[in-house]
Parts: sequence; C-alpha cells; structure tokens
Amino acid sequence: MHCLIIGAAGMLGDGLAKRLIREGKVGTRKIAKLSLFDIIEPKKLEGGDVEIATGATDIADPAAAVALIEARPDVIFHLAAIVSGEAERDFDKGYSINLDGTRYLFEAVRAAHEKDGYFPRIVFTSSLAVFGSPLPEVISDDFIITPRSSYGTQKAIGELLLADYSRKGFFDGIGIRLPTICIRPGKPNAAASGFFSSILREPLAGQAAVLPVDTSVRHWFASPRAAIGFMVHAAMVDTSLIGERRNMTMPGVSATVSDEIEALRKIAGDEAVALINHQPDPAIEAIISTWPQAFDAKRALDLGFEADSSFEAIIEAYLEDYAPKIGG
Amino acid sequence: MHCLIIGAAGMLGDGLAKRLIREGKVGTRKIAKLSLFDIIEPKKLEGGDVEIATGATDIADPAAAVALIEARPDVIFHLAAIVSGEAERDFDKGYSINLDGTRYLFEAVRAAHEKDGYFPRIVFTSSLAVFGSPLPEVISDDFIITPRSSYGTQKAIGELLLADYSRKGFFDGIGIRLPTICIRPGKPNAAASGFFSSILREPLAGQAAVLPVDTSVRHWFASPRAAIGFMVHAAMVDTSLIGERRNMTMPGVSATVSDEIEALRKIAGDEAVALINHQPDPAIEAIISTWPQAFDAKRALDLGFEADSSFEAIIEAYLEDYAPKIGG
Repeated sequence: MHCLIIGAAGMLGDGLAKRLIREGKVGTRKIAKLSLFDIIEPKKLEGGDVEIATGATDIADPAAAVALIEARPDVIFHLAAIVSGEAERDFDKGYSINLDGTRYLFEAVRAAHEKDGYFPRIVFTSSLAVFGSPLPEVISDDFIITPRSSYGTQKAIGELLLADYSRKGFFDGIGIRLPTICIRPGKPNAAASGFFSSILREPLAGQAAVLPVDTSVRHWFASPRAAIGFMVHAAMVDTSLIGERRNMTMPGVSATVSDEIEALRKIAGDEAVALINHQPDPAIEAIISTWPQAFDAKRALDLGFEADSSFEAIIEAYLEDYAPKIGG
Repeated sequence: MHCLIIGAAGMLGDGLAKRLIREGKVGTRKIAKLSLFDIIEPKKLEGGDVEIATGATDIADPAAAVALIEARPDVIFHLAAIVSGEAERDFDKGYSINLDGTRYLFEAVRAAHEKDGYFPRIVFTSSLAVFGSPLPEVISDDFIITPRSSYGTQKAIGELLLADYSRKGFFDGIGIRLPTICIRPGKPNAAASGFFSSILREPLAGQAAVLPVDTSVRHWFASPRAAIGFMVHAAMVDTSLIGERRNMTMPGVSATVSDEIEALRKIAGDEAVALINHQPDPAIEAIISTWPQAFDAKRALDLGFEADSSFEAIIEAYLEDYAPKIGG
C-alpha cells in the first residue's frame, strides 16, 4: 500500500513517517511506498524496504492536492496546518491553509473518486481547540463544538467537511482530536501551552524552567508516541463501526501540573523538581483557564484508541524516544 | 436605518419585509430604507415611509456581496440558501451558495470593516438540520452539532464562520436555528416535512390531506409569524449578553402529530380532522425518525426570543396571516 503524509516535516509527521517505515505495515497491509510532503521538503529518511518520495507542496494552491493524489495513495494523513497562534495573527493565511487547503484536498479526492472510483482512507488531525469555554469539568463525546480561535474554527470546519464527504461516500474519513502533546521534544517555544512540556523537558536535561500557572491547573495530554499511535490506528480502524460521526476526541491523561511535577520527582528526583521556578503569569493563567481539563473519550476508547497509561509513562516515552537527542 | 434582506423572495423573507415596512422600525430605530434581494428580483412592495430597493443577485459570485453592502446597510438579514433536498442532490450548488455565498458576504463585510470601520448586525438563519441522530429526547444548548446532510453541514459551517468573524470584531453576528415552519402557506410540496403543514392547511381549506407517519411522531415547530419575530428580535437583541457563542436554537412548540390533530379539531371540528387520511409511508417515517423532537432553548428564551404559545396559537396565526389568500 501507499501512504501519503501531508505535513511530514513537523514533529508528529516526522515521527509518524519513522514509525511507518519501522513497522513496514499498517495493520496487516504492507507499506510499499511512503510519500512525505510539507511546505518545505521533509528530510529524506532511510526507507529500507519502503520506497520513499519527498517533496515540497503548498496546499493553499488548488492544484497541489490534485498532484499529491495523482498516484492514488491508499491512506492520506492530513496533518498540515498553520498553528493556533499564527492563524490568530494572520486571519487570511489561517483560512487559506487550514480551511481552503483542507477543502482542496477533499475536492481533489472527490474528483478522483468520481473519475475512477478512488476511495482512500483520510486521517485528519483535529484539535482540542474546537472546544471553547465555558466547559464542564469532564467533556463528553456529545458536547458542543464552539471554538474561540480561528484555528479551532478552521479545524471544526474541516471536521464537518470530512464527515459530509465521508457520508456522501467520496472517501473514508476519520478526524482525530489530539490532546495537548507532552513532552514535546526540542526547544522551548512561545506557545501558551509550552510550559506543560518545558517544566519536564528542561529539568530532565539539567536546565531550569519557568512555571507560569498554579500547580492546580488541569489539562489533557498525550505523548508524541501515543499521538502517532492514534494516527496509525485511525488508518486501520474499521470505520463501519463509527457511523456518521467521523470525528472524535482522542483519549488522554488528565493531569494537573502537580501531577506532572510528582511524576518528574519519581523519575528524576527532587533535584530535577528544584529546577522549576514558579513565576505566575496572569496572561497565561487567563488563557489556560479557558482550556479543557478532561474528556470522557468513550467513542475512541471503544474503537481501540490507546492513551498513555499515566503521566510517568508519558515521561518514560519521552526519555526513550527523544531525550538522547538533546543530551538528557 | 437601512436593512438589507438577502433571500427576500422566499416566504420568510417576504414576510419579514412586510413586517419591517408595517412597523417602520427595528426596536426603537426607524427604518429609512429596505433593500430586498434574491436570486430572482423580489416583488416590489409598497413601502409607505420606507424607501424600498429591490434587485436580483447571485451570492455565489464574490462580487455580489461587495455590491450588496456598498450602501453600508445597518442590519443584514442573510436568509438566502439552497434548500435541503436540492443541496443533497446538487453537491456543488449547495456548497457554492450555502458555504461560499455566506463566506463571500462575511468577507465583503470584513473588507469594508477594515476599510472604514463598517460594523453591521448580521442575522443568519440556521437550521435544526445542524443536528443529527442519535439525539436525546430533549436537546440542550450544549449538544453537539453533527449534521447528516450537506445542507446541515453548510449551515453549521456558516455558524462557525459567523462566530469567528464576530469574535474578531469584523461584524456583530447572530445565528438563529429556526424550528420547522408550520403551517407553511401555499401548495403542498415534496419535502419530507411537508405533511406537518399539509395535514392542517388542506383540511382548513376543506381539502383532503395525507398523513404518512404515526400520530405519535414528535417534532419542533414555529409559525411563520414567530420565525419572523425571531429575525426581528435578533436584529435588535443586545449581543453583549450573548458572549462568543453567537448561534442558538430558537424556542418552539414541541408537538406530536396527535397534538396537531387535536388543535385542528378544536379550531375546525371533526369534519376537518376527517379529511386527514392516514397512509403510512415507511420511507418518510424513517427520515422523520432521525429528526429532533424537542429542545431546551434556554439561551434564546433568556434573550427574549418568543415562541408560539401552543399549537392552537400556530393554527390561529396561520388563519390570520395567510388563510384568506388561499380561500380558507
């Protein structure tokens, strides 16, 4: 089979590509070819038995998707997006990539379906940003989608389009709302959610980190390993079990900052915890206070999607998968 | 003030125009001008003190909205849409009018806002079709939007865009999900919902009607008079009370077919009821079984939106507003 990853240069896209190459199959189906595309050409990976193609593409161009599906990939992982902060600052760019780009892809697949019966699985990564406060403490699968950002709006529209195109039989789509990724490897970034990772990642590498919110703050997490696992499972899950509600929240670990710190203490000791400096930032506290705290992700669990087992497991997955690269 | 109705040739648009002319104001603000547009030019109404402009426009053309807002109307009623059955049959046309047409309007207003600070109220009529089964018996304001038709998908996307553009301060939008309109004046039509009106309208005019479902079927209704009232109220409600959730389900009357029939009996007697022929149609029963039965429309009620008081009131409103025209 042939898998296409759009957005393959990002952290999750790159990790997904490596996992697909390592396993050489999706479920029981052998992967013959893997196509890796992004706005900049993803780095060339060693594919072994899997043929690897890479390239740069701009999905804001309607012709891009037509070219991407020319070889009729069996599974399309659509991860490409302008991230939340940038979509909020640049309204046109966010709509152009996150809404129009997604629609061009779906339209290209529909045209191919109508031409020759092409019927790929499309895995679309959505986001918790589709939810907007006020929110209950635990959010059910039936809770309303009312985004409070342009990014969340664009992802919610992508979900609706995915469900309608799937319902009409143009392709076999599944949308997965990823929890906040933690521990995100790499350098600290300016995202409001950055501290959830940095208060663990930096101390694990012997460096200081700033905690801008109270330790009672609760949120919903998945390791990169679990998130990549969701995508692979979404590529092979039996969609006849899903019905018409093609989008769902992925399971995660609901944890407070205090839970994070205690998990760090167990794994790296008091010395690591001492590297966390609590410097409350009311602006960040205000943003985080509107975020989801926990979900009852029953639909996804029933379909076999598997979350990390604990916050300690999240830290252990990070140490195994990424820490050697940053010297931890 | 200047009001623009896009979709003014339809039953509700025409009724809204007549009500605005009759009252001569929205809330306390005097209406100086009323612009009436549709895909075909709406019929010329006698405006009295209100200046009336009419014209044909195709909102699938991006230039159309730019021209429509050239005179900077203070309130825009956006009612124009391809209806459910046609949007399901003609996928491209539905998306072109219901999604792209709505987005072109919002984009034109945003461009005007960025140019000269233009900031109209936009009243967008959405639909119960944004909800998809399985549904609870009574649907709360927090229930998830999962349409099972392209029309419902397009309306749900319009809601998301309206909320995001309002949140960004480009205009002051409010989206109102109308109940099923009953009694719809005019001739029987092929819509699956048509019998809800025809089992009353035809007997009130001394004619036979077919009931294709069981009398236990329950649904959510508003008279044309109440629906027009929702639009007028949406044009003047204090949107600072709404917050960022700019879309809401309108209050209605939850009634069974049996309730409809008993209301008919009270108003027009056994003779009228005897004109209803029960001929079960499994295809229509299957469609209707997926529809909402009742809502807890708390948000709209708190904002002062007023439903019909009973099913009898719905019939009485029909007799006063429309029946003379069809000879009832």
